Amino acid sequence: MPSTTGERAQDEKETGRLEAFSDGVFGIAITLLVLDIKVPRALELADRSTLEEALWRQWPTHASYVLSFVTVLIMWTNHHKVFRLIRRSDHTFLLINGLLLMFVTLMPFPTSLLAEHLAQPGGATAAAVYSGTFVLIAALFNALWHYAAHHGRLLARGYDREAAQAITRQYRFGPALYLAAFLLAFVNVWASVGLCAGLAAFFALPDSGNRKLRE
Amino acid sequence: MPSTTGERAQDEKETGRLEAFSDGVFGIAITLLVLDIKVPRALELADRSTLEEALWRQWPTHASYVLSFVTVLIMWTNHHKVFRLIRRSDHTFLLINGLLLMFVTLMPFPTSLLAEHLAQPGGATAAAVYSGTFVLIAALFNALWHYAAHHGRLLARGYDREAAQAITRQYRFGPALYLAAFLLAFVNVWASVGLCAGLAAFFALPDSGNRKLRE
Amino acid sequence: MPSTTGERAQDEKETGRLEAFSDGVFGIAITLLVLDIKVPRALELADRSTLEEALWRQWPTHASYVLSFVTVLIMWTNHHKVFRLIRRSDHTFLLINGLLLMFVTLMPFPTSLLAEHLAQPGGATAAAVYSGTFVLIAALFNALWHYAAHHGRLLARGYDREAAQAITRQYRFGPALYLAAFLLAFVNVWASVGLCAGLAAFFALPDSGNRKLRE
Amino acid sequence: MPSTTGERAQDEKETGRLEAFSDGVFGIAITLLVLDIKVPRALELADRSTLEEALWRQWPTHASYVLSFVTVLIMWTNHHKVFRLIRRSDHTFLLINGLLLMFVTLMPFPTSLLAEHLAQPGGATAAAVYSGTFVLIAALFNALWHYAAHHGRLLARGYDREAAQAITRQYRFGPALYLAAFLLAFVNVWASVGLCAGLAAFFALPDSGNRKLRE
Repeated sequence: MPSTTGERAQDEKETGRLEAFSDGVFGIAITLLVLDIKVPRALELADRSTLEEALWRQWPTHASYVLSFVTVLIMWTNHHKVFRLIRRSDHTFLLINGLLLMFVTLMPFPTSLLAEHLAQPGGATAAAVYSGTFVLIAALFNALWHYAAHHGRLLARGYDREAAQAITRQYRFGPALYLAAFLLAFVNVWASVGLCAGLAAFFALPDSGNRKLRE
Repeated sequence: MPSTTGERAQDEKETGRLEAFSDGVFGIAITLLVLDIKVPRALELADRSTLEEALWRQWPTHASYVLSFVTVLIMWTNHHKVFRLIRRSDHTFLLINGLLLMFVTLMPFPTSLLAEHLAQPGGATAAAVYSGTFVLIAALFNALWHYAAHHGRLLARGYDREAAQAITRQYRFGPALYLAAFLLAFVNVWASVGLCAGLAAFFALPDSGNRKLRE
Repeated sequence: MPSTTGERAQDEKETGRLEAFSDGVFGIAITLLVLDIKVPRALELADRSTLEEALWRQWPTHASYVLSFVTVLIMWTNHHKVFRLIRRSDHTFLLINGLLLMFVTLMPFPTSLLAEHLAQPGGATAAAVYSGTFVLIAALFNALWHYAAHHGRLLARGYDREAAQAITRQYRFGPALYLAAFLLAFVNVWASVGLCAGLAAFFALPDSGNRKLRE
Repeated sequence: MPSTTGERAQDEKETGRLEAFSDGVFGIAITLLVLDIKVPRALELADRSTLEEALWRQWPTHASYVLSFVTVLIMWTNHHKVFRLIRRSDHTFLLINGLLLMFVTLMPFPTSLLAEHLAQPGGATAAAVYSGTFVLIAALFNALWHYAAHHGRLLARGYDREAAQAITRQYRFGPALYLAAFLLAFVNVWASVGLCAGLAAFFALPDSGNRKLRE
């Protein structure tokens, strides 16, 4: 049990390395998204279309890139907010964080799947896999936070209770909303993807709930 | 409002993680540029050309790599300079920085597009997309800086006013110059790319404006 | 020989950079695993199968991704635990750590090899290469730890002897168990991969041995 | 001119971010090397060869991976050693370091080129490009070090003069030796690559010169 100054410093250092590793994984996952945007080949354009048209035809790829980039960036911001309150770590916490990173790292795959099949017969399946990944990530974020915050288990001594409650409130609806997007995929592909986009915009834009966290 | 020593330390730590994440994204984006340089296959060379000729024919790829690498490196240096004066962060700042990173991360795509189409019918479109990405990045750099520096909003208490003004001056012309490169793309592809190269060289070489920042 | 406060601080800083570099390499290797999961192309699905079936047929790829991700994550956690006790570095230590990173970095290759050949005639070879990579990594982890811990060579002054012995005990069986998986590959591919999966689950789940390390 | 405690701390922080960025770039460049090792496809093996034979036939790829990984790792170690003595940075230093990173980042390309053409008619060209990249990197390492060390320009006050002279001595022969490998490429491909491998082994193994640096 950490009780001396030395051990407390040791604790902070440890979380620091976990944050740095997580940041690295978020940063690489977000950057690998670009590898899915393929350049139209010059030889294939020669005869019947211009590069401009070819780029416009790629719009599902560009839209998927923006949607996934913004969503992963919001996830990183959330991870960041949670870790501002966390000081300690244990094996279960490392495990939950590891599973979370596994699905964050996977993001280039559902993004690429959505871009390829959005306007094709497989659109429903692609949108279900895409939003389903977000369901799992949102659920794991809740698990990570509730495990750490339960009786202040891994939080700093004298942590900011209001900030902690704001996170609990903010996380409550994530899994349910992404589950709605997942179920919508089987009804209407565009509604499902639209809901994901709406959620990204809602979380990205500064709102009163988020502003509270910063004051 | 941060006012105690503890909160000030907390602020510095937070910006530290934002810088580390941004550095990671810059570092990965700059490194992924190399993936666009494809090795000429041995089987395709067997009959009618040597490897040396094949490598020379790839010059648009090599030139694009160098131009994008140097430009992204300058962007990183600028990001670095800006963050030396910034101590705090808020939601809007995170959002602007996120958008900036989104276009930095995109860089391998316009680079690859330029390399493929520079000397082809789609050259104008490719050069417009390439320089257009720089217009957006330059504009977002200005937005980031002006948001942070407005009434010293996110700067350190007692920040170096001269260094801040030097950044404001240095950033003023970026968007306009890259906009000129963007417009030139529709007139002459080589002039557009040449202007981008000239700007990279101008910012890379030590000049009086940059030296001032270091004194 | 470090003896003053200044030199001790220098030592810590140096290990810090080695840890950061190692973390980066682990983080990138783990993230590159996703590049092996190829999206089924829409054009190839049009006639005779649905996207859903195509994704199910990809199960060896998905399973390999999960197995390798979890195993590399456990490796990272182990690296982390070891470095909590280590304070100094020398050339031989850098060399062993470098070889360890070389095989960690290689992981996307055996993972991809396993995914492609698991249910094919080359299954035994693929499983042997896969588990053989783990044999080498487990052996290098032991070498790294024993070199550092021998007479407390690179450990902190007054290091936690019980934690050190727990690591020695925990590492003892790794190479032998993965060697068993390697040999099993020539008898039964599924038993070999199953043993690798069992070891990943065993190390990932919190057990008494691991819990001891945290108390 | 830094003279107060505050400004000195500022200096250290700045070099810290430069080191972190450089580490990230080294780490990513070294990890991307694995992307060149392509898995033999199951369908192509079905009729006339086994996976084992196919993997043995890939030996130039495996050998190039090991050689480049070890060489880049040695470069990182050297970068690390140099930065232990450096405390400040300026525009010219950033520029030299940037050029150095540009060629380090390029490494996956000459590595892939060597693997593809080593035993083909283009072998001489590939080996020349490969060793030529090392000539440039070795020259830039010398430029970086001499610029920083000239009259102790960017070094810590009261830096270890013996360590500085050891670096100067150690770097002296790098460019000439790699230039010899470059010229050998036009005479005998294997001698050129062998010299590169010998240099990697020489620098990797602990020798008296390196040991001196650590005492």
